[in-house]
Amino acid sequence: MPAYLDLGAVAFCGIAGAIAAGRKGLDLFGVLAFACITGVGGGTMRDLLLGAPVFWIEDPVVLGTAAAGGLATFIAAHWIEPPRRSMRIIDAFGLALFAVVGADKALGFGAHPAVAAIMGLVTGTVGGAIRDVLSGQIPAIFRREIYATAALAGAGTFVALHPHLDRPLPTLIGIGTGLAIRLLALFFSLNLPRFTLHGGDED
Amino acid sequence: MPAYLDLGAVAFCGIAGAIAAGRKGLDLFGVLAFACITGVGGGTMRDLLLGAPVFWIEDPVVLGTAAAGGLATFIAAHWIEPPRRSMRIIDAFGLALFAVVGADKALGFGAHPAVAAIMGLVTGTVGGAIRDVLSGQIPAIFRREIYATAALAGAGTFVALHPHLDRPLPTLIGIGTGLAIRLLALFFSLNLPRFTLHGGDED
Amino acid sequence: MPAYLDLGAVAFCGIAGAIAAGRKGLDLFGVLAFACITGVGGGTMRDLLLGAPVFWIEDPVVLGTAAAGGLATFIAAHWIEPPRRSMRIIDAFGLALFAVVGADKALGFGAHPAVAAIMGLVTGTVGGAIRDVLSGQIPAIFRREIYATAALAGAGTFVALHPHLDRPLPTLIGIGTGLAIRLLALFFSLNLPRFTLHGGDED
Repeated sequence: MPAYLDLGAVAFCGIAGAIAAGRKGLDLFGVLAFACITGVGGGTMRDLLLGAPVFWIEDPVVLGTAAAGGLATFIAAHWIEPPRRSMRIIDAFGLALFAVVGADKALGFGAHPAVAAIMGLVTGTVGGAIRDVLSGQIPAIFRREIYATAALAGAGTFVALHPHLDRPLPTLIGIGTGLAIRLLALFFSLNLPRFTLHGGDED
Repeated sequence: MPAYLDLGAVAFCGIAGAIAAGRKGLDLFGVLAFACITGVGGGTMRDLLLGAPVFWIEDPVVLGTAAAGGLATFIAAHWIEPPRRSMRIIDAFGLALFAVVGADKALGFGAHPAVAAIMGLVTGTVGGAIRDVLSGQIPAIFRREIYATAALAGAGTFVALHPHLDRPLPTLIGIGTGLAIRLLALFFSLNLPRFTLHGGDED
Repeated sequence: MPAYLDLGAVAFCGIAGAIAAGRKGLDLFGVLAFACITGVGGGTMRDLLLGAPVFWIEDPVVLGTAAAGGLATFIAAHWIEPPRRSMRIIDAFGLALFAVVGADKALGFGAHPAVAAIMGLVTGTVGGAIRDVLSGQIPAIFRREIYATAALAGAGTFVALHPHLDRPLPTLIGIGTGLAIRLLALFFSLNLPRFTLHGGDED
């Protein structure tokens, strides 16, 4: 898996994190912190779960990429208003990229294919979920239109095609699948059926 | 420690997580995610802290068990309303089982007995705490009747009896102790004394 | 790095955690849990990220120190009202100590100097951030006067001076820098410039 896919995912998520920080009115430190947490949170969780060395500890370029995405957003926002839905679209690219690179790294560590797909989901969604929890919100992954399902579909497609097709086809098809599902869900407000239990005495 | 105790704890916590997701009105993905997070969260934290391989990474049966508990709950809830307090009672079984298996695993990694009891507490409570934080709630562990104390008592009993009694006696007495304390606290609304500080200028 | 600096940081953060628990009206277990989580949370995250053995697992004295700080606070609060700003001042000492010991440990594991400074920031702030999230609050690190910046400045100063000055000078200057910046910010309400984005259709 080429390193620029990882760095691209970090940059997309870093920009999305900085936009989220701006919507919360955080200061410059908060913007950079949200950019870094959103950019590397999912991959960090993946590496901890796999017992792998955490990907940004030995390579300061990764955190620099996330911070640069955040700083560029901070500066650009003084001149241009981010267009409608821009955060969610940028976020969709980060989601789709991270889902496939996360699944690929898990396969490289010998994970079962089903676990590898879950690790793609984790890599794609945990950074944004930590950011949302830190902002005092229920994570988008539990609120928004088909979101985690898109990451899981992209990662699962990659894992399924991986033994049968030459690189980079599984990577491209996996990323395209995740991105297409997420963008379609976003633009057409597609949701999975809800499950609602009522029970007054419990929380 | 037989593996079915671990899987039993995962299943109980998975069901409790799915009921919590239903009370939040999450979709099918959210139900399965809450089932898995509640089911494996505590054991994952235990394994990360111990430096052990994370228990569900190499064995997809674990996640499958949590997801199956969640799916069964999702389906069953279309026909039967979960009875009053059902989530807390199911949760109490997960708590008591996980407290003992968590402490046992920590002892196996050479942890000090006091740390092993704490690891039982962590294993029993962290999954539910992550689920509560993701739902935007203060974790039950800090709000409910004697809860963490039950996990700690169960794990501590197991750790104390472990060098003196043959298996499976310490396991059974430890699980029974944790379960009895938690259920008594639940049905008689027992609480520890509260600590209240007033100080207007700080949060 | 002498071990009493680590234990001192744990004790300061444990007291600050117990005061926070008191303001939330938690019970005795909650006070001890908040003391331990605030006391060891940052160092735990540091050790997980570095792939180091978690510092309190093999040494029950660490958790005992945090719990003792919490218990002493719980008892003392029955006689004396903690003075105004006491929590934030005690917290500042924990922040400054942990920033330097965290950066030092990261350097010892061969981290890049920039990553070591970030690890100082993580060690100093993550315990309090977990405590705040568990209390249902946005972490102080994103709300308060210059806070993370103080930790980063202290850790960065230590990392920069470390190759050039003999011990314990870099340690003392690093701790002093972090503490001075945090206390000045606290007493003069200094803030970094805020970044505010408006965009009605996103969260």
